[in-house]
Amino acid sequence: MKSLLDILDLDRKELQQLIDTASDIRKFPGKYSHACDGKILATLFYEPSTRTRMSFESAMLSLGGGVISMADAESSSSAKKGETVIDTARVISCYADIIAIRHSKEGAALAAADKGTVPVINAGDGGHGHPTQTLADLMTICTEKGRMEDLTIGVAGDLKYGRTVHSLISAFSLYSGIKLVLISPEELSLPRYVIDSVVTPNHMEYIESRSLEEHIGDLDVIYMTRIQQERFEDPTAYGRLKDSFILNGALMASAKDDCIVMHPLPRVNEIAPEVDEDKRACYFKQVANGRSMRMALIKMLLEEAQKDPIGKEIGLASRAARLPEPEAKKHRCKNERCITYSEPSTEPIFVTEDGRHYRCAYCERTLALK
Amino acid sequence: MKSLLDILDLDRKELQQLIDTASDIRKFPGKYSHACDGKILATLFYEPSTRTRMSFESAMLSLGGGVISMADAESSSSAKKGETVIDTARVISCYADIIAIRHSKEGAALAAADKGTVPVINAGDGGHGHPTQTLADLMTICTEKGRMEDLTIGVAGDLKYGRTVHSLISAFSLYSGIKLVLISPEELSLPRYVIDSVVTPNHMEYIESRSLEEHIGDLDVIYMTRIQQERFEDPTAYGRLKDSFILNGALMASAKDDCIVMHPLPRVNEIAPEVDEDKRACYFKQVANGRSMRMALIKMLLEEAQKDPIGKEIGLASRAARLPEPEAKKHRCKNERCITYSEPSTEPIFVTEDGRHYRCAYCERTLALK
Amino acid sequence: MKSLLDILDLDRKELQQLIDTASDIRKFPGKYSHACDGKILATLFYEPSTRTRMSFESAMLSLGGGVISMADAESSSSAKKGETVIDTARVISCYADIIAIRHSKEGAALAAADKGTVPVINAGDGGHGHPTQTLADLMTICTEKGRMEDLTIGVAGDLKYGRTVHSLISAFSLYSGIKLVLISPEELSLPRYVIDSVVTPNHMEYIESRSLEEHIGDLDVIYMTRIQQERFEDPTAYGRLKDSFILNGALMASAKDDCIVMHPLPRVNEIAPEVDEDKRACYFKQVANGRSMRMALIKMLLEEAQKDPIGKEIGLASRAARLPEPEAKKHRCKNERCITYSEPSTEPIFVTEDGRHYRCAYCERTLALK
Repeated sequence: MKSLLDILDLDRKELQQLIDTASDIRKFPGKYSHACDGKILATLFYEPSTRTRMSFESAMLSLGGGVISMADAESSSSAKKGETVIDTARVISCYADIIAIRHSKEGAALAAADKGTVPVINAGDGGHGHPTQTLADLMTICTEKGRMEDLTIGVAGDLKYGRTVHSLISAFSLYSGIKLVLISPEELSLPRYVIDSVVTPNHMEYIESRSLEEHIGDLDVIYMTRIQQERFEDPTAYGRLKDSFILNGALMASAKDDCIVMHPLPRVNEIAPEVDEDKRACYFKQVANGRSMRMALIKMLLEEAQKDPIGKEIGLASRAARLPEPEAKKHRCKNERCITYSEPSTEPIFVTEDGRHYRCAYCERTLALK
Repeated sequence: MKSLLDILDLDRKELQQLIDTASDIRKFPGKYSHACDGKILATLFYEPSTRTRMSFESAMLSLGGGVISMADAESSSSAKKGETVIDTARVISCYADIIAIRHSKEGAALAAADKGTVPVINAGDGGHGHPTQTLADLMTICTEKGRMEDLTIGVAGDLKYGRTVHSLISAFSLYSGIKLVLISPEELSLPRYVIDSVVTPNHMEYIESRSLEEHIGDLDVIYMTRIQQERFEDPTAYGRLKDSFILNGALMASAKDDCIVMHPLPRVNEIAPEVDEDKRACYFKQVANGRSMRMALIKMLLEEAQKDPIGKEIGLASRAARLPEPEAKKHRCKNERCITYSEPSTEPIFVTEDGRHYRCAYCERTLALK
Repeated sequence: MKSLLDILDLDRKELQQLIDTASDIRKFPGKYSHACDGKILATLFYEPSTRTRMSFESAMLSLGGGVISMADAESSSSAKKGETVIDTARVISCYADIIAIRHSKEGAALAAADKGTVPVINAGDGGHGHPTQTLADLMTICTEKGRMEDLTIGVAGDLKYGRTVHSLISAFSLYSGIKLVLISPEELSLPRYVIDSVVTPNHMEYIESRSLEEHIGDLDVIYMTRIQQERFEDPTAYGRLKDSFILNGALMASAKDDCIVMHPLPRVNEIAPEVDEDKRACYFKQVANGRSMRMALIKMLLEEAQKDPIGKEIGLASRAARLPEPEAKKHRCKNERCITYSEPSTEPIFVTEDGRHYRCAYCERTLALK
């Protein structure tokens, strides 16, 4: 049994397999309309996220399965009575064959997967991960560009807080010949730790820039994200910068004929409505691809659960060496946004890839061991 | 592909066809239990309306289809982030084969239908329209009275704000021999513009009255609506009038033996509980008819979408001549309750039936052109 | 047509039949996956109760049926407009084949069953009843212990407010050889009226105690419930007592090898996480059993409705002799938590088992007749 907690829980072969299945689903939907007959998906959304929830639910229905839903689990009776995510996951494991969970705390999906008895899909755990958005992104690039390698990819907007962007950059580390153009106001540039832990070790080529206009002619993929005005303390800075990050018809005139424009949506005004009619605009295709990839993913995870209902592959906690339990119990993750911090009964798990540095398996925060 | 935004989007033949299908559904439900296998309905309710939402969902399930639901879309994450109805409709078009939308702004359903890629059903757009309630009403009259013509129809209660009543009167304009008895307190009488635009041009016979008692013996159909105490500034006026508009057993004694009592529900106290046992009470039958008509409608719209997935019939914007786009862009609808007012990125559409007077296609407000 | 409003609406034979069906469902789920094809369950939850709602919905989907849901009916548009439970039940009867209702008022489920036209399952009506939790409990005891008789059953925690406990004790009255050990702080001991109306008349053996530790070695079943700190006015009393009621590994060492630990969940800290790994811990099995029993129940009630769609068995109102209507109308139930108190249009029903003492059929409160 396998859960999907982070995009890197899938290797390049598995990613390709999902893209191939999703493409086949788009072509021959009828072939898959009974693939999950009799199975139930629970959408367990502690934070509302209508678009993601409905994508999962539509995916499961189109596979012939059923759906039970907690659209706003934070205000659910059990959560209010103080039930932990772990207990909720165990209970929902009795009602559903697979769970898609969204939670404001980092690592909540791992906690659910660790103690639940069915596969878990991370539909967003705080600022930590949102792998199924990345699946939608990868399928869109692969389908529209015909390849995943040798691409110049511009990522524009809020690169600091956007977990979508971090997850996408992680995924690109699996492919060669990717050149990143990181376009953002200085205040919202890509955090140092992403450069240090993902970009540099994987020898990814990148440049940082403050101007979309300057680079747009070089880009194969223009990945826009929302810039949030409220992040700026100084309104002058916002006023000065925001125009570089509104993609409109005039800017599109400078872009390559075969480039594609992507956006995780919802957008507010960073892409002008006139771009919608441009054939290079792919953000609504991305939405459709997201649904197809979720179908492929649900099908794959349910098949693996059937083959091996007991063994568990749960992300980093399975991929890396663990600090032995007695030792682990002596430490606590100090990240306030980590699920082990807000729900202390969650069993601490620390992992190491190099045998020297340990990270919390839930939130991936580095742990200083003595 | 056709959407249902206003009851007049259907002609008399189509209305009869829907009533016939709905009647057949009531008789032979098994024949239809797989009519929409594999199809998905999205209920997109920006305003909660439990009864209408559940009627749509029950209808789709009984056709073999699936349902994804936003029960309170106004507080959804995307709407909060500032996403427009149009973008939401495009996204949901990727998840569903048909959308039922309810929104507080007039014309929101047209906006969704104009840019979405699946058929849209208006489940209520502000004070503008609520055509599927009218479908329930028409089926009830047709089934219980055996005809749609030569009927004396009393409509009692709040005729000013009740969109149900306006929509029903529009529908009656398609039939001959209808005599309307409009019973309301003066403060809540039928607006002048409904008389001028629907009743008079169609040569419909009508009288206005302040007393239900006076006319009840003449009525073939007694259509009750809720009178809302809060509309009255003067409590004495409310106290004086409200008793004329409570239908009870005593009043029913003066009614025709073969009349029928209708109400769009929920009622509060304008129909006394003792009337429920009267065989002339048809308001719960109306509920059941509403579900059957929604089944017939969903089936019809999905079939038309299959035949012609590209072309679009979207209400007034398709039925009347449009002001050409460059000219249209110079004007804005000034109705604060119109979707084009609250979401200015919505493309303005103005239409004319006589080549001289233009109306906003969204809210039907008359536009003064220079 | 039969509704389930109280656990005693089922006799011992019917209970056994449900347990047998539920056990068969666990063994051969495929046999039942189309048992309710084409049927619709409405979950009508005026109070949120995510766990119970999802259990019902999962049950119906696994029977091949569909689900329409009001997850928070209290804030629904109809309830806000002042619609009664009775009108809502009638409307929902047009959309669904069976209703599971949860409401804060005692007797709300009876009101719905009395006027609705489909079977109703009480999913919790205030402090009055919650029979499907008891079904889960009985199946767990029967399956894990292999019998329902000659058992020593410890019930620990809040015995005063916990309707789960009252309902379970009622059910035990059907079986012989049950010995109850009622363990609670004095402030939360079992109410006198439960002793007088259930325990004593059925000659059930019982002892009351303040210590779990003292009795744990004698128990075949340890039924834990949540002790709510907020019930205590005196924090010293809470501090003194709470430790007797936390079941941990140390206490489990004194328990019988073949005892079982149960809890209706959610728990907060009255069962320590280490007990979860103990093979005697059965509270997650209870959850799974609850789902299976709800499947068996829905199937049974739908079959009975098909056989007899008109006649109605609705709990106490059908099991006992009624005060004739003209006389009943002279009285009103004085219980503020009774549905007939908050919705006075609800028809009063009073019943008697001995021809002398009358009770309100909704809330079972004794009525003083002159």
